[in-house]
This record gives sequence, C-alpha cells and structure tokens, in this order.
Amino acid sequence: MATPKIRYAMVGGGRGAFIGAVHRIAARMDDRYELVAGTLSANPENAKISAADLHIAPERAYVSYQEMLVAEKKRADGIQIVVIVTPNHMHFPVAKACLEAGIHVICDKPVTRTLEEALELQKIVAASGCFFALTHNYSGYPLVRYARELIAEDKLGKLRVVQVEYPQEWLTQAADAGNKQASWRTDPTKSGAGCLGDIGTHAFQLAQFITQQKVEKVCADLTSFVEGRAVDDNVHVLLRFNGGAKGMLWASQIAPGCENGLRIRIYGEKAGIEWAQEAPNELWLCELNKPRQRISRRGDLSDIVARGVRVPGGHPEGYLEGFANLYKDIADILIARENGEQDFLQDWVPDIHAGVEGMRFIHAVIASSENDGAWTKL
Amino acid sequence: MATPKIRYAMVGGGRGAFIGAVHRIAARMDDRYELVAGTLSANPENAKISAADLHIAPERAYVSYQEMLVAEKKRADGIQIVVIVTPNHMHFPVAKACLEAGIHVICDKPVTRTLEEALELQKIVAASGCFFALTHNYSGYPLVRYARELIAEDKLGKLRVVQVEYPQEWLTQAADAGNKQASWRTDPTKSGAGCLGDIGTHAFQLAQFITQQKVEKVCADLTSFVEGRAVDDNVHVLLRFNGGAKGMLWASQIAPGCENGLRIRIYGEKAGIEWAQEAPNELWLCELNKPRQRISRRGDLSDIVARGVRVPGGHPEGYLEGFANLYKDIADILIARENGEQDFLQDWVPDIHAGVEGMRFIHAVIASSENDGAWTKL
Amino acid sequence: MATPKIRYAMVGGGRGAFIGAVHRIAARMDDRYELVAGTLSANPENAKISAADLHIAPERAYVSYQEMLVAEKKRADGIQIVVIVTPNHMHFPVAKACLEAGIHVICDKPVTRTLEEALELQKIVAASGCFFALTHNYSGYPLVRYARELIAEDKLGKLRVVQVEYPQEWLTQAADAGNKQASWRTDPTKSGAGCLGDIGTHAFQLAQFITQQKVEKVCADLTSFVEGRAVDDNVHVLLRFNGGAKGMLWASQIAPGCENGLRIRIYGEKAGIEWAQEAPNELWLCELNKPRQRISRRGDLSDIVARGVRVPGGHPEGYLEGFANLYKDIADILIARENGEQDFLQDWVPDIHAGVEGMRFIHAVIASSENDGAWTKL
Amino acid sequence: MATPKIRYAMVGGGRGAFIGAVHRIAARMDDRYELVAGTLSANPENAKISAADLHIAPERAYVSYQEMLVAEKKRADGIQIVVIVTPNHMHFPVAKACLEAGIHVICDKPVTRTLEEALELQKIVAASGCFFALTHNYSGYPLVRYARELIAEDKLGKLRVVQVEYPQEWLTQAADAGNKQASWRTDPTKSGAGCLGDIGTHAFQLAQFITQQKVEKVCADLTSFVEGRAVDDNVHVLLRFNGGAKGMLWASQIAPGCENGLRIRIYGEKAGIEWAQEAPNELWLCELNKPRQRISRRGDLSDIVARGVRVPGGHPEGYLEGFANLYKDIADILIARENGEQDFLQDWVPDIHAGVEGMRFIHAVIASSENDGAWTKL
Repeated sequence: MATPKIRYAMVGGGRGAFIGAVHRIAARMDDRYELVAGTLSANPENAKISAADLHIAPERAYVSYQEMLVAEKKRADGIQIVVIVTPNHMHFPVAKACLEAGIHVICDKPVTRTLEEALELQKIVAASGCFFALTHNYSGYPLVRYARELIAEDKLGKLRVVQVEYPQEWLTQAADAGNKQASWRTDPTKSGAGCLGDIGTHAFQLAQFITQQKVEKVCADLTSFVEGRAVDDNVHVLLRFNGGAKGMLWASQIAPGCENGLRIRIYGEKAGIEWAQEAPNELWLCELNKPRQRISRRGDLSDIVARGVRVPGGHPEGYLEGFANLYKDIADILIARENGEQDFLQDWVPDIHAGVEGMRFIHAVIASSENDGAWTKL
Repeated sequence: MATPKIRYAMVGGGRGAFIGAVHRIAARMDDRYELVAGTLSANPENAKISAADLHIAPERAYVSYQEMLVAEKKRADGIQIVVIVTPNHMHFPVAKACLEAGIHVICDKPVTRTLEEALELQKIVAASGCFFALTHNYSGYPLVRYARELIAEDKLGKLRVVQVEYPQEWLTQAADAGNKQASWRTDPTKSGAGCLGDIGTHAFQLAQFITQQKVEKVCADLTSFVEGRAVDDNVHVLLRFNGGAKGMLWASQIAPGCENGLRIRIYGEKAGIEWAQEAPNELWLCELNKPRQRISRRGDLSDIVARGVRVPGGHPEGYLEGFANLYKDIADILIARENGEQDFLQDWVPDIHAGVEGMRFIHAVIASSENDGAWTKL
Repeated sequence: MATPKIRYAMVGGGRGAFIGAVHRIAARMDDRYELVAGTLSANPENAKISAADLHIAPERAYVSYQEMLVAEKKRADGIQIVVIVTPNHMHFPVAKACLEAGIHVICDKPVTRTLEEALELQKIVAASGCFFALTHNYSGYPLVRYARELIAEDKLGKLRVVQVEYPQEWLTQAADAGNKQASWRTDPTKSGAGCLGDIGTHAFQLAQFITQQKVEKVCADLTSFVEGRAVDDNVHVLLRFNGGAKGMLWASQIAPGCENGLRIRIYGEKAGIEWAQEAPNELWLCELNKPRQRISRRGDLSDIVARGVRVPGGHPEGYLEGFANLYKDIADILIARENGEQDFLQDWVPDIHAGVEGMRFIHAVIASSENDGAWTKL
Repeated sequence: MATPKIRYAMVGGGRGAFIGAVHRIAARMDDRYELVAGTLSANPENAKISAADLHIAPERAYVSYQEMLVAEKKRADGIQIVVIVTPNHMHFPVAKACLEAGIHVICDKPVTRTLEEALELQKIVAASGCFFALTHNYSGYPLVRYARELIAEDKLGKLRVVQVEYPQEWLTQAADAGNKQASWRTDPTKSGAGCLGDIGTHAFQLAQFITQQKVEKVCADLTSFVEGRAVDDNVHVLLRFNGGAKGMLWASQIAPGCENGLRIRIYGEKAGIEWAQEAPNELWLCELNKPRQRISRRGDLSDIVARGVRVPGGHPEGYLEGFANLYKDIADILIARENGEQDFLQDWVPDIHAGVEGMRFIHAVIASSENDGAWTKL
C-alpha cells in the first residue's frame, strides 16, 4: 500500500502572494501531501476565492487560523501539519497556536520577528512534541548537501575561510506602493529586519549548514542606501566560526544585475569548494594543485544526494526541486517519528534551532553595526 | 470555482521506468491533472503494485490498455486523456486505440516506430477530433519559446545558419544487460532508431520549432561506434531549410563529459541567438556589433514566457518545469477546445504533425546515410 | 654568451596592415629576433615610412623583395629568415624566391593560393634545405599542445568524434570599400578562397594537429550568403579521419556575436577534451563517469607546455603569446638544425606539409560542394 | 622618423627571478624600450651571467646600483629610466638613488616596505622632477580602464557597493625552503607585509583606480593561518569610501583552486559592473532591469581602450599585454613631458601617490586588525 498523503493547511498564501505558491508546488512535486484546508488571507473574500482556486472544500476555507485549528481538530480527516507563509510578524502567533494544538508546523523564514519570540517558540516546540521545520530551502539543493558531506568526510581538511554572499537587485530603487511584497519587506514592523532578515539569514544558515560550524562572533556594517527606507538594504559582516574559520558575508538588495546571487565558497587546508544558487547543478571541488573538478548533480554521488534527485545529470533541477526536497524529507521525518525514529535525517532539515540561531545572528549583526563594528557574540 | 482537474491514465511508467515519473511530476506541478487509472506495466504484478504506489484505486489498475479503455468508458468519472510512456514500438497501437475510443493522448516521442505508422496515426487523429500531444519537452522551456518569438519578430533578420547539437555520454560503452532503458533503446525492434530517434529527433524538432522553418533536405552520416551495437550512436547531418538557412545537426550518445548537451545557435542577417539546455535560464542575444546580452528567464519578457514561469528570475527552473509547461498548455488547450477555440496556443505544443515530421526526418537521414550522404528530401 | 638574435626581414606588413604587426610582436616577445630589413609595402612611400616606424635602417627598406634578397645576400649581417605577411596570392612567389636564395621562411597561412602552387613549393622547400614555417598560430597555444599530448598518451582511447568550429561575425554584412582586409579577403583572385581559406583551414589544421590523424574524405556544403560576395562565407563539412574518427567542421564569417570562436571537441572511447580559443587558458578533460576537470595552463603540465608558458597559472596568456611560441620554436629549430638536429620539435611547428594538406583540404571541400556533397578524397 | 627607444636599466630580475622577466617582456612588446644596463643581482656572478642572457654589454652589467648610476651618468647613451624589481625592502634605497640622480623610475609594488619610506619617497619624487611609475599592472587592462570610464560618465549613478577580492592558493601550505619567491614574501623583514602587501594592495588600488574614490576608513581582520608563518596570509577588510560607497576586500593566499582570482564588482544606483582578472577580455555591464551585457575588449570602445588593444576582439589578450600597456603609457608620458605636457594620461598610470595610498592602506589595515577591528582612518 502507498503511504497515505499528509493532510496540510496553509496560513497565508492567497491570491497575489508569492511564496505560498512555491510551497504548494514543493508539496505537490512528490505527491506526499494533500492541501485540505487553509486560512489563505486575512481578507475573507480573498480567503474564500483563493481556497476555491486550490480545490479546498468551501467549509475548510477559514478566515482565522484559530478557528481553523478548532474546526480541524474535530474532524477525523483533520489537518496534520500547517504551512505558515504569512509576513514575518505573524509567524510567531500562528506557529504557537498550531504547536499548542498538537499540529506540526512548516514555517517560512525568518522564524519570527524578534529573538525573544524565537526563544519562546523554541520552548513551545520542545513542549509540544511536534516537528517544526523552517524552510531554509537552499539546504534542499542536492549539491549543497553534498558539499556538507565532503566537509564531513574531511575532504577539505581543517576549514579556514568561508565567503558567502547573497546579492539581489530588486530593491535598488524605492519600492512602488503597489508592490505588495516589497512593501511589507521594507516595513520594519512586519519584517523585523530588511535585507538582513530576508536574505542575510539565508546566507548565514547556508554557511553553518554546510560547514557544520557555528558563527561565534560578527563584526558588521549595515546600510540603508535607498533614501527613506526604514530597514537595511546592504549587509557587510565579518565572521568568526567556532572551529577557527573566518569569513565574510555580504547580502544586498541593491546590486543591479544580481537576481538571486546566493553563493558560497569554502577553503580548507587541502581543498576548496564553490557553489552558486543560480547554477545549482554544479559544485566545484578544488583540490590543491589539481585541476578544478565540476561535480554534476547525479544520484550516484551519495545516498543523501540520491534522495533529492528526480532526473539524471544534465537535466537541470532548480529552485522548486530544492524546495520540494525539504517537503519530501519532512514527510519522511514525520513517518519515521511515528515509528519511533526521532533522529531520522537529523540536522538535514532546518528546524527551530536553526531559527533561533538565525535570530541570534540578526540580533548580533544589528548590535555590532550600531556599536561601530565591534566584534559581537551571537 | 476552480477549473476541475483533468482525469488521466498512464500506459507504461511502472516501477523501474524513468520517463513515466517525469510525466507524473509534470502533470502534478500545476495541479491541473489527476491520475485516476493506469496500465502501468505489461507485468500484472508490477502493474498492480505500481498503481498502489501512485494512489490509483485498485479497480482502475489495469493490465491491458484495451481493457482499460472499455472499463473507463463506462464510468461517469472516466479518464479524459491517456499518457503513453511505453517503449517506442507500443506508441502506435496504444495511441490508435485511445483515439478511436475518443480519448485525448499525450505521447512520448518519437511518435511511432516507423514513418508508415506515423502517417496512419495522423489520419486517425484527424478523424478522431481528439488532441494528440507529443512531448518534445524542450519546447516547453520559456526561453526556447522566447527565442522563437524573437525570430518571429524579425529580431535576427533573414536566417542563415542553424547549428544544433545534442551530445550525451551514457552509451559510450556497451550497455549492461541490467540497464533496462539502455537495453530497449539499443534494440532496433523496440526503438526504431538509436541515437537518431532518441535524441536526434529532439534536436531536429527544436530547430524547426524555434525557426519556424522546415528542413527540406538532409545529407547524413550515421555511425554505430560501439562494437556489436545494432543501432546508430552518432549522427552527423547537414541541413537545408525551406527559408534558405543551412545548418548542422550533431547528436551523439558516445561523447564522454556530455550529460544532456542539447544546444542551439541560430544566426541571421542582424543577430544571433544561442541557448543550451543545461543552462536553460539564459538566452544569449547577439546583435551585430553590440555586446552580447544575457537574457534571463523572467515573466515580464512576453505573455508566452509568463505562462511558463513559476518563480522570479535568478531562481532556476529546469527540466521538470519545462516539461510541466507542456502539461499546463495541454490542459488549457483542452478547455479552450471545449469552448470552441480550436487554435488556442496553435503550434506551441508539438502535435501529431511534429511527430510525422520527426519520422520523415529519421527516414530521410537513414536513407541519405545509406546512400553515401546524398542530399535527401524529407 | 647569449644566443645571437636571428636577423629577419618582413615582406608585407606596412602601415595599415593587421597581421604584420602581430608577427612582429610575436618575434619580439622572447627577444630572439631582430627586424633588420623589409619590403613592407608595394607602395614605395609606404614601404619607406613603415620601415622608419620600425627602426629599420633606410638602406634596408626595400620596395621589391627580389631586390632585397640580392642586396641582403651581399651583407655580412644579412637576413637569415623572411616573414611573409602579404595577401595570399603573393605567398608563393615570395617564398619561392627566398628559398631559392637559401633564406628560411615564415609564411602566413594559407600557404598559397592554389594546390598546384603548394605542391610546387613543397618541392622547392625540399630542394632548398631551408626551414619553411607556416603560422597556423593556434598550434602555439600551450593547452592545444597539451591536448595533443593527452591523445598521444592514449588518455582518450580510440578517437571517435571530432567537432571543430570557427565562427566569426566580421563579414556578416557586405564589406565597406574602405576595409582593406575585408576587401582582399573577399576577392577570389587575392585570397584563393573565402571563409574556407581564411579560417576553415585553421580549423582543419587544428583538428589534424591535435588528433595526429589525417582527414581522408570530406562531404561539404559551401555557401556565400551575402549578396554579391564572390567567395564563400559559410562552410559546412563532414569529416572522415584515417584513424576511424568522424567529425564536423563549421567555419563562418557571418555569425553575429562570434568574434573568433575557434573551438574543438574530441571524444574517444574513454574520455573527451574540449578547448576554445577565446578561453585558451583552460582545457576540459572529461573522463567517462568522472567530474569534468578544468586543466589550467601551467608550466608543470609537461615539457612542451613549459616551453610556451611565461607567467604562472591564473595569469592569462592569449593570442600573442601563442603566436610567439611558434617564433620561439622556430628560433630553437634553426639553432638545432645548425647543430645537426634535424628533427628537433618535429611536427610541433606547422610546416610546408601542413600547408599542402591545407590546400588539399580546400580543394576537396570545393570539389565536394560543387559535386552536391559527394564524399571526396583529400 | 620613428621615436627613439627609451634606454633602460633593470635593478633585480636576474636568473631565477619571476617579475623581472615580466617587466622585460612588457617593455619589449611595443618596441619602445631598449635594455642597455643592469644590476640584475646582488651576486656578482649571477649579475654577469644574467646580463649576458639579456644582450647587455658586459661593461654595463653592474654589481651595485650606485656604481651603475655613476657610470651611466657619464655616457652620452646613458640610461634614462630604471626598472626596480628587487624584493620590497630594496625599493626605497634604489628609487631614492635613481631619482636623486635625475633618472626616472618604474618600480614594482608595493612602493616601499614602510609608510614612512613611502612618504619620504613622495617628497623625493616631487623634488626630482622625474616620473615615478608604480606597476600596479592590473590598471593596464583595457577593460579595467573602460570600467573607470563608464563610472566617470555616470553610467552607474552614485556608487553604493564595491566588492573586491584577490584569492590565490600558492601559499596554502608552508613554503618550501627552496621556493625563493615564497621565502622572501613570507619574511616580514623583506616584504613588509604578507598577503596584504603582496596582493591586498593590488585589490585596494584597483578599487580606487576604477571608482576614482578614496577609501577613508577600514575595519580589518588579518590572519596567518599556516603554522609558523610570520606574516598574514588572509585579509578581510570592510571599506568605507569618501564618496559614500561601502565595500569589502578579501585577499588570500591560502584558497585552494584560486590561481590569481582578482575580481571587482561595483554597484551604483543605476547599474553594476563586474570584471575578473582571469577573464580579462570581458566586462559585464548590468543596467537595472535589462539583460546583462558582456562587453568584449575591442578597440572601438574608447580612445583609452584603443591605446591598449593590439588585436581584434575575440583574440584574447592577457596579463603581459596589460602590463605592457603601462610601459607604453610611460613611454608616451616621458615624451609628452619633454614636450611640456605635464598632465598627459594624468592618473591613468599609478604613480608615487598611489604608492603612498597603498602604504597608508597597509598601515591602517594592520592597525585596525590589531585594535580588534576598530574602524581606522587611512
């Protein structure tokens, strides 16, 4: 018998939203999930229409997530997991409510608006016994995972330098009033932090995820270049890792020509590796005094890579497939947990701890920048 | 109300097959289809297990496609379209049966094993009033379509040279007995032609699709390099187009280092364009005496591009998304036809005519090669 | 004591010419030559001024090469070698005169205007005992030479497919009357052949040079796309090599966006290699089922590479350095010959035989194309 | 009449040295210089042999630069300019002696070992009336200069972010005792600073040269990763420019896979530009919301580009040609100055002021790093 599909609801993600649609495709890709309910919009009319678009039964198209949790609890076929794709400031209350109702959560990043919220959520997750996944989706790319494996196998030797960057161009100019996403992302009451929270945290998470080292201290220079913008749009940070490596992190949303330029380069005593999100099907392995090797995304690289590969090498996979890998892993993790395997895929899917670390990073970077670049502990 | 999903069945594509899974992901990506029935394998046990894997109800897991067509006909919720992903020699009989039962067809390429079958199928399609789509999936890449639009808008001027190539490496050595796919693909009774039919037709179709010109004559040199191989594994062809352009087509399955290297370059009086499948999110536009421009896959390029874009520029899309674009288009075409719009997306989705042209190409190439490279009409 | 510099004269290459200046830089790069005389232009005034530009003593600025040969013969410090950089139709008479005067020759390619001349020149060279070098300069790139070594060492296994191409854009439109070079190159009485002779021969020579196999037969389609042009501007050729490999050669001067796109890809039973002139400091080695390796131009690759490398890896070398490598080799060959080593660097510097082969290639391609693509022996 | 060649002497650069040979090729490329004298080595025997290698007359092969200056002064055909290619600690005394003798100087970088020496040298240059050129050779690449022109023409708008980096791999491991260059470069008494002085200054100079802005403050983290190394081998610096831009500078000599990875990216309000030394023939211009443009090195871009281009686009030029452009410019500057044009090519060739700024940079970076990353003025 095929494994039954996991029944999920979405909070946020109605018509006009971006990331909700991405989550739905990711959930759909491997046929492991079924979207059965939703609180898709704070606007009742939009909530209703959006649900109809998505084949959600009218009676399960809610206008409040609290109401949804109560109603779904009563159903034999009620939801098992909630996907939160609201603006950042709503992550905390929705996640809290779900977890306290015993519902697993998949939450878009950053985990919350403040570090305090994140720390509180960490306790709530622990108390709930539920799984809380944070969609740092770039962790889902097969070659990102393979990079981590190469380091774990000591292919690079002791790590020395980590250069990570994430430039974009889409906020080079002041945002149009009509750009829904640009508007909440540059509103500090909704986003918590600007470029730093939006993409700086992705870069930070990627660096920690691949190296399996923790950033201990940062020295930062945050800037808001666009006149009138209330949040940072450029992030310059020096990094020191607990394993002795040093690094630089650059995130920017004002870099014309850069679409989604997440890129990481890591150098150790024996070799370096380089990966860029816009060419995700290749990983460069540079062993000292040997020709650079272009490792292609192929299922035969390793078991963890094989899990996240759907087509042969040379058939490009992209952003959606990487995202879908998290969904697939979460589905398998839920099943494993039901079978008592608490540590299945341990650390491969970003969780509440990654969320807390991300908030600590935001906190420390802001503190360092406000303190004229003083080295600041996370 | 959301548009109801299209109910489809699959013939072929059971456990262990490759392309069936690709079709299912493509069908799933935009939530426009529902897999409700299948004749997934000629082996009854595999057919049953494979159906269960895919959440197909046991009573709709058939062991013969004829039986399936009869049984589904009787259901109010019977299948509307059949996806054929069997080895090539089965395309014709299955498609014929479906069309004669009034069921639309999505068929993997090449359309049939012989030109005669293709010509007969062309008549059957015409008589049936059904839609027959041929999954030359590379036509689904947004930038392939944009390339066609640039040419249609005369951005290149009169076309002169078309260089298309499709090298792979996977048959560099004699195939293992255990490699199911390699084994039927190198068996002329099942595949019809080797490299020529498998990927040469993709290259041919891509060239015609983008240029909107027809290849009139070919001059060819087919080779089977691997000892004991019964079909060609390298294809060299000179091309002459009806619009005056000339070209070269190279397809190979014995080129180490080439994973899936489909690539096309087209040069006109005013400009050239270049696109490669392994970097599908960029299209190079080279206007004479200007810097090369790297056009990124973005929804704002044109309406046809916007149809096939799910994420912003810089977020790579790949093979599966391109494939899914055909499925999305077919769904919209079926709806449009029900509404009397017979020419909706006319020519954007490869159909039976593309299939016949592909078979004429195979026929002419083999004839030319056997005739010591004589220029041969299609 | 330092080796004395070789005293050379140039025929052609006065003000306004292109390739003469390239030869002079190449000769100068390693300080092995001294330009002491010249017949730089058929125009006496230009000959004089051009000589003064180049620090040639006025009495050694000649207006006729015949006169120059006579006058230099009488000097104790007379010329040892002549560099011929005239339009193609003058190569033969000048080379003949030099060789008959016992003077070595460095000649730009193609060697002559006709095959008959080339064959006659071959005899003259043999009778003269002089060295005749043909500047197929791309043979001078260190990684081209390394590619040849990899093949010689059987790194690729038996060769199967050779894809070579050389697209340019500069003759996409009808040439201005004012463009001196375009004007003689498209005049069949001066050039002998158009794109085929100008760059098709480079592609042909490169393929033979690297593979060390000979093209036995060609099947060709020559075109003159630009209205009113008397010579071909696009060359499509299928190749068969004496070692069993097959190939394609494309040369074009009407491909917008292509500046100097000479590129070769060679595939054998075990591996493939790829090299492109516009990125000459990297060679791709693709061993079957291994990651592609980017071999960087470094002196430690081999002795022959070390000869032609002046700066460390990562410090790009280009066209002029490759050209200069031929000059350096010729200088060492002349010294070796004086010391009785007739076979020093045997086959590494293109000579009269390469010239004859190139003319045979031109001849066969034209014949095949005129004969509707019939396979034609060289 | 041709302009007479400039007579130069070299100090340093005997057998076994690297950069001296580079300078000589650069001087030779355009035939504007003649090497007539030298103090090529502190070792008398090596000085003699090295001079003979280079066709320097025995009587002009000196063993002390002081002696050379005296002797050459007496000759009618004495030296006009001295090229200093010694280890760093000798730059100051040799330059001082030359300038005080009224001899122009071309000096390898960094200008001196300490800031104090640089400041004193600045005064000496001013008093001497001689020209002092510092071979920050990357300024000689045509597309680096074109990048500067694009910014000067306000193509980018107000500059915001400057990312410059210069990773290398060659000191990843402790240097062999036998590696002459590695040995003095990692000896602080001879080099002054490690990676920072050797290549960090190149990155700094390039950023200032292209932007025409000055770095005002730095916040730095210097590291010596290789055990036992007395100087830094990795440099992380945050930058603030006087025009309001911010930046990052990374230089490293322990990054496996990086040969000579100097690269700069500059983003303004309207556009970004990107250039990398290992692909020096292309410059990327990224105008907001337009396709990226790959600008190819071609003589028709601008007058300053035309000066430094010897072959057409698509014919790669590299490190030596860029270096040679400085030599060509210096030759023309000397002539212009003789003709009273003091500001010919003003600011295009790095001079003593660039040298002083480089030393201030080194000084400030070391101070900041020692002061736990405090922002430090230059």
